Amino acid sequence: MPDDPGPFAPRGSTAEVEEGRLLSPKFDADGLVTCVATDAGGGEVLMVAHMNAAALARTIETGEAWYFSRSRQALWRKGETSGHVQRVVEMRIDCDQDAVWIKVEQAGAGACHTGRRSCFYRAVPLGARAGAVTLEFRDADKAFDPQAVYGDRGKAR
Amino acid sequence: MPDDPGPFAPRGSTAEVEEGRLLSPKFDADGLVTCVATDAGGGEVLMVAHMNAAALARTIETGEAWYFSRSRQALWRKGETSGHVQRVVEMRIDCDQDAVWIKVEQAGAGACHTGRRSCFYRAVPLGARAGAVTLEFRDADKAFDPQAVYGDRGKAR
Repeated sequence: MPDDPGPFAPRGSTAEVEEGRLLSPKFDADGLVTCVATDAGGGEVLMVAHMNAAALARTIETGEAWYFSRSRQALWRKGETSGHVQRVVEMRIDCDQDAVWIKVEQAGAGACHTGRRSCFYRAVPLGARAGAVTLEFRDADKAFDPQAVYGDRGKAR
Repeated sequence: MPDDPGPFAPRGSTAEVEEGRLLSPKFDADGLVTCVATDAGGGEVLMVAHMNAAALARTIETGEAWYFSRSRQALWRKGETSGHVQRVVEMRIDCDQDAVWIKVEQAGAGACHTGRRSCFYRAVPLGARAGAVTLEFRDADKAFDPQAVYGDRGKAR
């Protein structure tokens, strides 16, 4: 399944891939493209995940975000456990078609399985030695109780 | 080099990785984390690229974006050819520490080697059969002439 190119166009020349109108994603060795989900309102990055051909096709066809969980090796409808589905307002693809950007309306309190709105709730200070970094929590208030929402399944949702 | 964990903390328990203050990135089998660069002003996604341990460390230490080019298998200072460097205003790391989000001030006309401001200059229409998609150019005006800026090196800069 990860190797299934799905219903998409075969890869053409660089010019066709970059300047054309055919969707011909460049799936990696594991059959995945990277997907960035941002909040359609505030614009912040909510999460980064992966899509295989089936997840990408279902997202396009349904207008709801589907991903492929690398840890569980399974197709995954965002919100299937939590109810925190993502309605896709706009999807973009990048120049070489190995990354997708979706602007989403995030249902429920948040996108992150830790209970935050965004997975990116810690800042990395700049200008110091990388080995001496201490992360700073930022926009890190819990928006929901992950134990209540996910129970013991609280991973990578 | 791709397997070099660099100066970062070893991976701890899930709770330590997700709720702690140590930077302990989860590099993939190729030694990379995903990096999303957004415009610090407008908020749009400019590009998605990868960092190995050395690129991540240099970005943290210099406050300018460094990446690892998978196609060229080389450490890469963004803008080294084009002058279109990225000054990092803020760096975030996600829950499981396998993705980085940087908010950048993009020097020069754009981030994309095709001459656009963003690599995400095409939209994927939603609600139709995935196999029948025709991409729509959006925010796709060329901000600079890639041939003039990159010459024959115009790939993946």
